[in-house]
Amino acid sequence: MSTDRQQVVTLARRPQGIPQREDFEIVGAEVPTPGAGEILIQTLYLSVDPGMRGMMEESKPYGGFTPGQPLTGRSVGRVVTSHHPGFAEGDYVYERLAWQHYSVSDGSTTKKVDPDLAPLSSYLGVVGVPGFCAYFGLKEIGRPRAGETVVVSGASGAVGLTAVQLAMLESCRVVGTAGRSDKVAYLRDEIGLDAVINYKTAGNLHAALKEACPDGIDVYFDNVGGDVTAAVLSLINRHARIVICGQTSQYNTASDSGKFAPELLIRNSALMQGFVVYDYEARNDEAIARLGRLIRDGRLHYRENIVDGLENAPQAFIDLFDGNSFGKQLVRLAPTTGHDRLPDGER
Amino acid sequence: MSTDRQQVVTLARRPQGIPQREDFEIVGAEVPTPGAGEILIQTLYLSVDPGMRGMMEESKPYGGFTPGQPLTGRSVGRVVTSHHPGFAEGDYVYERLAWQHYSVSDGSTTKKVDPDLAPLSSYLGVVGVPGFCAYFGLKEIGRPRAGETVVVSGASGAVGLTAVQLAMLESCRVVGTAGRSDKVAYLRDEIGLDAVINYKTAGNLHAALKEACPDGIDVYFDNVGGDVTAAVLSLINRHARIVICGQTSQYNTASDSGKFAPELLIRNSALMQGFVVYDYEARNDEAIARLGRLIRDGRLHYRENIVDGLENAPQAFIDLFDGNSFGKQLVRLAPTTGHDRLPDGER
Repeated sequence: MSTDRQQVVTLARRPQGIPQREDFEIVGAEVPTPGAGEILIQTLYLSVDPGMRGMMEESKPYGGFTPGQPLTGRSVGRVVTSHHPGFAEGDYVYERLAWQHYSVSDGSTTKKVDPDLAPLSSYLGVVGVPGFCAYFGLKEIGRPRAGETVVVSGASGAVGLTAVQLAMLESCRVVGTAGRSDKVAYLRDEIGLDAVINYKTAGNLHAALKEACPDGIDVYFDNVGGDVTAAVLSLINRHARIVICGQTSQYNTASDSGKFAPELLIRNSALMQGFVVYDYEARNDEAIARLGRLIRDGRLHYRENIVDGLENAPQAFIDLFDGNSFGKQLVRLAPTTGHDRLPDGER
Repeated sequence: MSTDRQQVVTLARRPQGIPQREDFEIVGAEVPTPGAGEILIQTLYLSVDPGMRGMMEESKPYGGFTPGQPLTGRSVGRVVTSHHPGFAEGDYVYERLAWQHYSVSDGSTTKKVDPDLAPLSSYLGVVGVPGFCAYFGLKEIGRPRAGETVVVSGASGAVGLTAVQLAMLESCRVVGTAGRSDKVAYLRDEIGLDAVINYKTAGNLHAALKEACPDGIDVYFDNVGGDVTAAVLSLINRHARIVICGQTSQYNTASDSGKFAPELLIRNSALMQGFVVYDYEARNDEAIARLGRLIRDGRLHYRENIVDGLENAPQAFIDLFDGNSFGKQLVRLAPTTGHDRLPDGER
C-alpha cells in the first residue's frame, strides 16, 4: 500500500484577516504504512471548525498550524488495517487527524464511535465537540432553571443550536441571535424559540433584547462576543451566569480586544466563565449518551452542511467566515455505506 | 430631648466627576425623639466609603442619595435611649444611619457589636463590610491554594489590605498594586508581600507583573479595574479565578466602559465573578469571628485614618479620590471611652 498516493491539505501561509484560497495548498503524498502496534485509518469525514482560524496565527497557546505542514482536525474514519490489539478492521473511530485520506495512528488518542448510537457524521457535531460545548457549558456553568430566560448568541451554529434546544428542555424562555433571515426563520419556526433576533438588522440591539427578554436575562451562552455580548450584559439579572464558549466575531481581528464593564458583574453578583471542552473530557460518554438519546427520541435537531471531496475542504473552511454557512460544516472523503443519511439540510 | 439641635450632612447637588466641597452642605436639625419600640442612637463613627460616590448618581440600582437629603452610611454608635426590648442603654450597635449625631431607629436593621471582640471602629473596616468583602470574595470566589500566585489590586485599601493578608495566610505568593510610594513601602516592608507594583510609576504594567509573577496569576482580587485589570488578565493561568470586588478607577467616570477580552477566559477556562457583600449576609458572624481572632492574634493588620468632627466629613469623603487616602477613612463624632485606640496609623 506504501506506493499508493493521496492528497493532503496544507497551510500555505498564515492568513491575514479572512482566510483566502491561496492560504492553502493541496499536495500529493504517499499513503503511509502502519507499523507494529499501529492502525491505518481511512478518513470519512473532516470537521471544518472556525476555531482552526486561531491555530493559524503565530504562537497560539493551544498549539497551532505551521506553513508547509498539513492542517489537522477532528475526523471520523474507518480502520482499514490494524496491527493494534484494541482495534479491528472495520471499526469506526474518532481522532484528530491530518486533512488527508489515510493516516497512521498508534491508537493512543483514537476513540471508537458507535454508528448505531448516532450517525457517524454527528460525532463531529451534535454528539462531538460542539455538542459537548453546549452540554457542559450549559449544565456546568449556565445551570438554567425552569422559568429563567436564556439567551444564546450564534444560535444557529453547531454549538448554539444544541444549546438552545437543551435550554428549551429545561423549560426556560429561550432567545437566540443569528445573522441571516433564513436562520432566524428556522430557529423561530422549526426549532420554536421564544424569540429570535437578527443582530444585523435589529438596529438597537439593547432595545430588541429588552423586548425579547421582559424579565431580564439569567443565562447567557456566548458564542460570538462583541456588540451582541455588550447588549446582553446590559440586561443581566442578579446572579446571572455567563458562559463564554466562543468569540467568533473576534476570530479574524488581529487584536483580541473587546468592550466589557466588570461593574456589571458586581452590580448583579454575576458569574462569567470561560471553558474549553477538554475540561470535561472525562465526562464525554455522559454527554454522548444524553445527546444520542435525545436525537433518537426526536427531541434534538441538528443541521449539517456536507461538502464532498478533500479538494473542496479549503473553500469549506473559508465559507465559515462569510456568514453564509448554516449547519455544522463537514467534508466527506468517501461513501459511508448506510451510516449516514441525507447529505444536506436537517436530519 | 426634642428641642436639642444637631448637625446633618446633606447632598447639596449631584457631583460632576470628582466630588467638590460645594456638593455637600451642613445644616441644623432637631435631635429626634424615639417613640414606642424605638431606640435613639448616638453615632460614634461614620464610615466614609468610595462606593457612596455611585449612590450620588441619578437612578442607581442600589438606591441612592437625593439632593437636599442627608447622606447615609455605615455607622457605629451607642444606644442612649431604648424603648425596644432588644436593646439597652449603653449597647454598642452597627447600622446604616444618616450622617448626623443622633438617629432614631426601630431596631429592625440594628446590629449589636461587641467592643471586646474587636475595637469599635473596626466594625466599619476590617471586621465590617470591607473585611467581609475580602473574606468572602477570596474564600468563595478566589479560593487560593498554597503555592498559587494571588494578585490584589488596590492592595493598600481597606478591602485589599485584608485580602492580601488572608492570601498570605494560605501560603500563596502574594503581589499587590498600589499608587503611592509610601503605600508600596508599607505593603512590602510592613506587611511583607512578595512583590508590590506602583501602577503609576511602573511604566509597562504587563512587564512589571510578569516579573513579579513568574508562574503566572491564579487568583486576581480586583478592587480597581481599568488598566491594571487589563494587564493582569493577560497573565492569568488556566482555571484562574477573578474576583470582581470593586472598580474604583471607574467610579468618577460617567460611562462604565472598560476593556476586556472574554477570549482570555476561554483560553484559560477562567472564572470571573462579581459580588456584593449582601450575598453573604447570613454568614457575617463567621467572618467576624475569623477576622476578630486574627486581629487578636496579631496576624491581621489594618489601618484607619480617623478624622474628628462631623463638619469634616465632606472633606474626608472628597479626600478618598485624590489618591492620598491611606487606611479606612472614618469620621469620629464623639469620644468612645476606651473602646478604640490610637486615632491614626496602624493598630
